[in-house]
Amino acid sequence: MHDDLARSLGRLSELALAYAQLDDSDPVRPVLDPDHAVDSLGLALPALGMDIDSVLDRVARVLAATPSTSGPRFFNQLFAGRDPAAAVADMLASLANNSMYTYKVAGPMVLIENLLVREMGRLAGFEDAEGVFTPGGSLSNLAALLCARNAAVPHARDRGVDGRPLRVYSSADAHYSIRKGVGMLGMGRDNLVSIPCDAEGRMDPVALEAAVVADRATGLTPVMINATAGTTVQGAFDPLDALADVAERQGVWLHVDGAYGGTMLLSEPRRHLLAGLHRADSFTWDAHKMMGVPLVCSVILVRKRGLLTALLNESASYLFQGDTDLYNPGTRSLQCGRRNDVLKLWAAWQYHGLTGFAARVERQLLLANQLADRVAAAPDFSLLRRPASLNVCFELTGKPSDAICARLHELGLAMVGHATVNERCVIRTACVNPDLRAEDLEALLDAIREVGATLP
Amino acid sequence: MHDDLARSLGRLSELALAYAQLDDSDPVRPVLDPDHAVDSLGLALPALGMDIDSVLDRVARVLAATPSTSGPRFFNQLFAGRDPAAAVADMLASLANNSMYTYKVAGPMVLIENLLVREMGRLAGFEDAEGVFTPGGSLSNLAALLCARNAAVPHARDRGVDGRPLRVYSSADAHYSIRKGVGMLGMGRDNLVSIPCDAEGRMDPVALEAAVVADRATGLTPVMINATAGTTVQGAFDPLDALADVAERQGVWLHVDGAYGGTMLLSEPRRHLLAGLHRADSFTWDAHKMMGVPLVCSVILVRKRGLLTALLNESASYLFQGDTDLYNPGTRSLQCGRRNDVLKLWAAWQYHGLTGFAARVERQLLLANQLADRVAAAPDFSLLRRPASLNVCFELTGKPSDAICARLHELGLAMVGHATVNERCVIRTACVNPDLRAEDLEALLDAIREVGATLP
Repeated sequence: MHDDLARSLGRLSELALAYAQLDDSDPVRPVLDPDHAVDSLGLALPALGMDIDSVLDRVARVLAATPSTSGPRFFNQLFAGRDPAAAVADMLASLANNSMYTYKVAGPMVLIENLLVREMGRLAGFEDAEGVFTPGGSLSNLAALLCARNAAVPHARDRGVDGRPLRVYSSADAHYSIRKGVGMLGMGRDNLVSIPCDAEGRMDPVALEAAVVADRATGLTPVMINATAGTTVQGAFDPLDALADVAERQGVWLHVDGAYGGTMLLSEPRRHLLAGLHRADSFTWDAHKMMGVPLVCSVILVRKRGLLTALLNESASYLFQGDTDLYNPGTRSLQCGRRNDVLKLWAAWQYHGLTGFAARVERQLLLANQLADRVAAAPDFSLLRRPASLNVCFELTGKPSDAICARLHELGLAMVGHATVNERCVIRTACVNPDLRAEDLEALLDAIREVGATLP
Repeated sequence: MHDDLARSLGRLSELALAYAQLDDSDPVRPVLDPDHAVDSLGLALPALGMDIDSVLDRVARVLAATPSTSGPRFFNQLFAGRDPAAAVADMLASLANNSMYTYKVAGPMVLIENLLVREMGRLAGFEDAEGVFTPGGSLSNLAALLCARNAAVPHARDRGVDGRPLRVYSSADAHYSIRKGVGMLGMGRDNLVSIPCDAEGRMDPVALEAAVVADRATGLTPVMINATAGTTVQGAFDPLDALADVAERQGVWLHVDGAYGGTMLLSEPRRHLLAGLHRADSFTWDAHKMMGVPLVCSVILVRKRGLLTALLNESASYLFQGDTDLYNPGTRSLQCGRRNDVLKLWAAWQYHGLTGFAARVERQLLLANQLADRVAAAPDFSLLRRPASLNVCFELTGKPSDAICARLHELGLAMVGHATVNERCVIRTACVNPDLRAEDLEALLDAIREVGATLP
């Protein structure tokens, strides 16, 4: 082993422990002025190299100045926390550096991917799912759009999109990746139809069916219905069974974007939130959100085996040498070289087991409901509505939510985002960090009050 | 800090060192039968969890059974080796778990990405490049195809592809991701025109121009010329200046896929291999190949700032809150949540400096030439041709290359692939591991001879 490699790996535990300690001692890092931080942190790219210890010290310094996404004051995204098993497994996967295209170079990591695809497919009700891990929900959704486009226009892969309007239906509260994907795949964003939601943020099946019928009557081609299981802002679940009825009646591909909420499948008492999922054609599920493994870990599952391979396989005799397609996931991937994003999830599964995952989901739901209870009971707060899952949206009555979020960050009190719902700008929190305690939620509300008092 | 996290991070150095040691003691792991390895390695997903030490021991066991891509017997892909700075930096980036969409949650990591984009753009001759890191060269090439498509059909993003044939030109030796991307973006793989190569594997500019002219004469729309800097099999460099002449004359987008060979820009004496690159419209460059950082680390650069943002930005007020687009790379990314793939490259750059990278490229070229010399001098080997870069293709005279590669692997002697060039099946090696020594190359040739003697 190279001396410097022995040195850097030897320092790894010290560096990792010191870094993780910062979640407690410095949970919200000071806001850095981007115009000055390149100099103040010494980020410039040098012409001459330096010794390994100096590099590692610099890496530690930059990391210490980077926002913490795992500390108890981070409520800004739909991921948070640090899983003891997944974190270390992912670091070792990075060290091992296998590319996930072939069994020849990834070996048992392919078997792990296949096991996870099968089990996650089983939980979704896809008995013989085909699937592959992708670098994030946006790209999983892109793969689903690709499958749906080809189901409607079977020769699109070889002959191209032929110019007829290909319509995609998604709720007003759906994730922006659907819109981006429609633009990428040549269907045109003008052909993305925004379906209204009910008061709880769930897509309206009646409005959806009317839109599909109206389109078909005017000669447009319906391609895909995108349902969301766990919307970005409110954590709402579209009524999948009713949407599946529409999809079946109208003969349209049904995709379920469960990037966020798919994890509810792990909990027997919560699985009903996704009732009807087994009738969908494809499903996106991110393990780096509610399942708490490091970024990124997303899977695209299709109910009918072979569809991904049919759309993504290319012959490349310099790469695919021996072993069947089943063991060469490069044949069904958007990528060629691909990072190993499955070992971390496998390690977390060993650590928690399905029962442990279920208990964690329950605990996270309990936290979200505790927060909602506190907000509802406080005279100075206004709760948007009872949480559908882990998101709690609310206002400090009479104070601007966006300014509160900005000040919380500037003052180092918390990192939390805002969102607009029915023209109300609300504070959006997501209780996705399983290590959160009740006092962290209390501290968040206190901090919001403190900041609010300084605002007009 | 959670006790189990302290425990797992505390064991990290021990686990990492033990793993890296295997490169020396067990450089080619036994071939596992995929039908039995799930049981023999205990890979099943359990219902009940287990203690953290048991999980880590299992992770170590699986890794020990996974092919090594960094040892001295691995010649199978266009990546290899383990950089002491990049490896540890990437592991810490995984622990930190920042998503690269906004400055708010990624802070200095965004500044690092911007510095790398600017410097890599400068080296490419793109003075004001726009760029973003993607999960691999295939997706970087997809982003380039998207830009090119929109340059030819400006309203494609909103109105869709309109059915007119959109033609893409790429050499017969180009990477398969171009073909995959054309199929994805609605242009139709039948519209990918394969341009012949010269005897050295370089795209023929005269044949290219004839194809473009002929297409335009029949009413087809030329969209993109894909040139390759460092082909997958032979490591050949297309003549970029001559191709840029064609692109300019014909008014067609020129993309350069330098996923593999872009790294030659780091070496003053080798930069001429990419002469003319500054005239291209877009450029793919993977740092996880010749630059030796862990998978994946690819950048797509476009010469004209703003094009990526124009094609990939979506308004998402729940995500982009404050800071300008410059500091919110999510506005120009294919992804939403995105792993931090830049800290590893930044750390490697601190460790080596530009001069160190240049010296490493020279050393790798020297190794490739040494191997070619040995092969050329040996009466029982047949060299395909002098290496254009790090790839050396050859045969053991009279013996089937594919069978040799399979036997080398089965016997635990080396992992190396084969490829077909002009209907000859050759052994393809790539000297990308900077830690290779002359005796490793000697050992490879000896192993090939040993195996060849057992074959008819």
